[in-house]
Amino acid sequence: MTTTPSTTTAHPTAPYERPPWNPQRPGPMPYHRYRPFQERVRVPVPAGGRTWPSARIERAPLWVPVDLRDGNQALAEPMDTPRKRRFFDLLVRLGFKEIEVGYPSASRTDFDFVRHLVTSGAVPDDVTPVVFTPARRDLIDRTFEAVAGLPRAVVHLYMATSPVWREVVLGRDRDGVRASVQEAAAHMARRADALPGGGAHLRFQFSPETFNLTEPDYVLELCDGLTELWDASPDRPVTHNLPATVEIATPNVYADQIEYVHRNLSRRDAVILSVHPHNDRGTGVACAELAVLAGAQRVEGCLFGNGERTGNVDLVTLALNLYAQGVDPMVDFSDIDAVRATVEHCNRLPVHPRHPYAGDLVHTAFSGTHQDAISKGLDAHARRAAETGTAPELAPWSVPYLPIDPADVGRSYEAVIRVNSQSGKGGVAYLLRAHAGLDLPRRMRPEVSRTVQEATDGSGREATPTELYELFRTTYLAVDGPMRLDAWSAHREPSGAHRFVCSLAYGDRTGDHEGTGDGPVSAFVDALAGAGLAVAVLDFAEHRSAAPGEEGGAEVTTAYAECRVNGATAWGAGRDASSLAAAVHAVLAAVNRVAR
Amino acid sequence: MTTTPSTTTAHPTAPYERPPWNPQRPGPMPYHRYRPFQERVRVPVPAGGRTWPSARIERAPLWVPVDLRDGNQALAEPMDTPRKRRFFDLLVRLGFKEIEVGYPSASRTDFDFVRHLVTSGAVPDDVTPVVFTPARRDLIDRTFEAVAGLPRAVVHLYMATSPVWREVVLGRDRDGVRASVQEAAAHMARRADALPGGGAHLRFQFSPETFNLTEPDYVLELCDGLTELWDASPDRPVTHNLPATVEIATPNVYADQIEYVHRNLSRRDAVILSVHPHNDRGTGVACAELAVLAGAQRVEGCLFGNGERTGNVDLVTLALNLYAQGVDPMVDFSDIDAVRATVEHCNRLPVHPRHPYAGDLVHTAFSGTHQDAISKGLDAHARRAAETGTAPELAPWSVPYLPIDPADVGRSYEAVIRVNSQSGKGGVAYLLRAHAGLDLPRRMRPEVSRTVQEATDGSGREATPTELYELFRTTYLAVDGPMRLDAWSAHREPSGAHRFVCSLAYGDRTGDHEGTGDGPVSAFVDALAGAGLAVAVLDFAEHRSAAPGEEGGAEVTTAYAECRVNGATAWGAGRDASSLAAAVHAVLAAVNRVAR
Repeated sequence: MTTTPSTTTAHPTAPYERPPWNPQRPGPMPYHRYRPFQERVRVPVPAGGRTWPSARIERAPLWVPVDLRDGNQALAEPMDTPRKRRFFDLLVRLGFKEIEVGYPSASRTDFDFVRHLVTSGAVPDDVTPVVFTPARRDLIDRTFEAVAGLPRAVVHLYMATSPVWREVVLGRDRDGVRASVQEAAAHMARRADALPGGGAHLRFQFSPETFNLTEPDYVLELCDGLTELWDASPDRPVTHNLPATVEIATPNVYADQIEYVHRNLSRRDAVILSVHPHNDRGTGVACAELAVLAGAQRVEGCLFGNGERTGNVDLVTLALNLYAQGVDPMVDFSDIDAVRATVEHCNRLPVHPRHPYAGDLVHTAFSGTHQDAISKGLDAHARRAAETGTAPELAPWSVPYLPIDPADVGRSYEAVIRVNSQSGKGGVAYLLRAHAGLDLPRRMRPEVSRTVQEATDGSGREATPTELYELFRTTYLAVDGPMRLDAWSAHREPSGAHRFVCSLAYGDRTGDHEGTGDGPVSAFVDALAGAGLAVAVLDFAEHRSAAPGEEGGAEVTTAYAECRVNGATAWGAGRDASSLAAAVHAVLAAVNRVAR
Repeated sequence: MTTTPSTTTAHPTAPYERPPWNPQRPGPMPYHRYRPFQERVRVPVPAGGRTWPSARIERAPLWVPVDLRDGNQALAEPMDTPRKRRFFDLLVRLGFKEIEVGYPSASRTDFDFVRHLVTSGAVPDDVTPVVFTPARRDLIDRTFEAVAGLPRAVVHLYMATSPVWREVVLGRDRDGVRASVQEAAAHMARRADALPGGGAHLRFQFSPETFNLTEPDYVLELCDGLTELWDASPDRPVTHNLPATVEIATPNVYADQIEYVHRNLSRRDAVILSVHPHNDRGTGVACAELAVLAGAQRVEGCLFGNGERTGNVDLVTLALNLYAQGVDPMVDFSDIDAVRATVEHCNRLPVHPRHPYAGDLVHTAFSGTHQDAISKGLDAHARRAAETGTAPELAPWSVPYLPIDPADVGRSYEAVIRVNSQSGKGGVAYLLRAHAGLDLPRRMRPEVSRTVQEATDGSGREATPTELYELFRTTYLAVDGPMRLDAWSAHREPSGAHRFVCSLAYGDRTGDHEGTGDGPVSAFVDALAGAGLAVAVLDFAEHRSAAPGEEGGAEVTTAYAECRVNGATAWGAGRDASSLAAAVHAVLAAVNRVAR
């Protein structure tokens, strides 16, 4: 065994220097008040080296939500029975199989809720409730009172075990704490033995609270003692739950701590090794994941990371992280907004807009390059799905900037791309297509994007899809301008030539004109030439789509024309039920944009 | 070289089973659409094994906030120049030495802000601005236009390099992308060379965007190519910045990726190795920390984790995580609420109540056991500080459940302990002491706590310190009841005995009474016996403190008495400028609580 860490980062940062903080001259941040974790707890590393950095997670651990206990203890207004019941039912519906339901000896609310579960029969056959108790005989008795009548339960004993807690809070040494734990555990065993059936419907759990600050050999001593005292077996395993009660080190250290226990526990196959990470350093998710790599089989946490201070680890993120690796998460977050609404109601706390998977903004891109890539990626996804004959919602997902398909968690594509001054052509084109059925020709996109950016740069605000379309309409679809087309007809001659007859007003001149060409558009251009305006159509595109506001009903054609008029060029567009009218409109719009 | 990961988690979870998802019977979550990262990117592990899991962080990396670019690109309403300037000035004040200020070729707003920095002279001598540019000649030219006149700057070139991006977004192969990067970099070098002084005031940075999905050998090829092309040296190093553009794996994989590059880069001492983690999996902080262990010297991120989707890694958390290990964070978050207010104003996004270090709730405990431990810990802290003659705000910190002293980030102890139905005696005692100067005797605390819990269990609400005191006052300080003490005097006889003379009303009987004893209180008890009420004082305590609402001014005594009256016991309390009056009041209050 060697101890970790043994080396220091090899490449200190050279680019800047600052004098160290001087306690004599009070500076802003007295970092010398704190000690590195290496001086607080020593974690042995196996002689053969760690295995967790090379491990792979191929199945979900057992997720155990502790929202109704640990989470509830952290709310300014704790849940009452109706809110707790609503949360419990949600957890059952999502597929959780073991659920911590309360700390019945700590408050009447918690006691009453456990009794409510008993009397209402709310616990399905495949769900096991867990109740939490401190190591005190009277409180253990109260806990057993609470669970009387439950078809099955885990009784979860905890006691803080680290040096600071032993000295400052408990006033007991290692032996004293061990004696208290053993005594409480023996009392639990006696209470269970006295029940009908020898209490076989109960299992036991132990948490050495502040595990991550506790001497690893002492943790083993405590856990192994209880494994033996409770006579755990593979059929009736004990759960040893190792909390990072307050995060104190980078998550690799927690993994080392878990691997040490995992590899040294006695009767390993009679133990479910569990972890309970908090998030004080913002690394709760990482701690849980690395702990599972290190041998943990069960993870306690809360939905969206509720819990005292910075919260418990977020089970939603953990489950969906596995999901995004192709591993069955064993829980169902296919309607994440409904889950979020219930949790926000019960906790009376918001989920942040940037919360992984569930925040309002997390499937959204504002930046131009992101939008462009997403837009191309969605096209490629649709193409691949079509080629393989797979429904797009079941086809393998690989779209830039979107780690999962938002549809998998019940989100629409509505908010994936949102446009402001930071956006570019890809995003604008995507939104105009998605919301207005406009499929802009590739060469037209940069110009439309510039038009949008000028508007958003000026306002500093986001442009909604409706505003984008309005901007497109007034800029490209408008035909107001010096050239007015009053009445027209298009004719196809028996020869195959096209003839365009129209009445045109240009400036103060009005007159009837006629032109011919290979098609109606070129005939119109010829007529314009007759009116004294030399127009060349440089690019042209058109498509059919549902008329705005008429899904599945009437269709319209949108035409796009880039025209050169007297040396200047501009794009115009037209929309009409008639393809011809749309095309004529597009050319006229382009002409008038130049002429204006 | 072997590839990672090679083993699988050893202990699958046995306690529950569920049939795998069946694509023929659409289930809730089609996890089969996703591939494990191991199939997307292969990360070589050095034959000698990883070094990062044993490394130690002893100094802060160079923090580079990208709020003004990457963060700004993620806001529904991007910052205008006044907001950007306010943010920039904040970053300077906090001590950041390298600051990404914009993407000047992408929007007029960004261009204008960089020009504003030039013309206003807002950049201090020890701060280097960074500007971001894509690999396109015209946009590089626009970027050089923007920075003209800056005293120093880093020009930051980026291009996406991973297979999906190459294929779907760029339509170019490895060679094609490398050629584009080299061409753009050469153009940058030429533009710099043409400047006065050969552009020595400029440095270069390269980001292979989507680094974490890119073949590691290709990353080396690209980075080494630019190190050479730009002729980087220890005096004028190049920054190679490796983004986890979208998180795709557990953070140990990112560390492996960084260690691979760190150990294989050419001209290592001419390169500043930088990382840019995002937070899609909720592990951005862990990625940054493990990357620093793996050899990164520079970390890009945003304050409070702003940025596209789930955000960039949060530099506040990273810096304070180091701080809590006794490492100088090199930035100043001693007034974190002021920092937060400015950032919330600029971004128009909230910081979550559970956000590490900065959230409203993160230094708060509601749970009884936590409050008890914190209360004891704060006492022990004050004692240790006094013993060593150190100011408490500079003394080593080791208080349960509070990873740092909230005062270090400018928070008061006001909100550390808040009481509701989940709270216990420690919290109630703490709040009554902190807010009302009541130092409850240890034996009285459980009863007061029960009184509070009954009230909060009933209301389901938090009890404010004012409400707690009001509850204490009406329960323990009130003397209304069957026994009324109308007028009294206390006398000390020359013999040393005490005599208590009083007029008592008890039920419908009124009369004058007198008693004697060792002290005035026992004399009062003797007088009560004369009135037919047998009272025994079981416990008694008193202390002086500032009168409520009169800090530093008048003092009062608070007395606490536990009395047995006719076999029943109760606590009472009294508060008066006179110690004797307080004691008499306490006994009378206890008597009347029993009698009521």
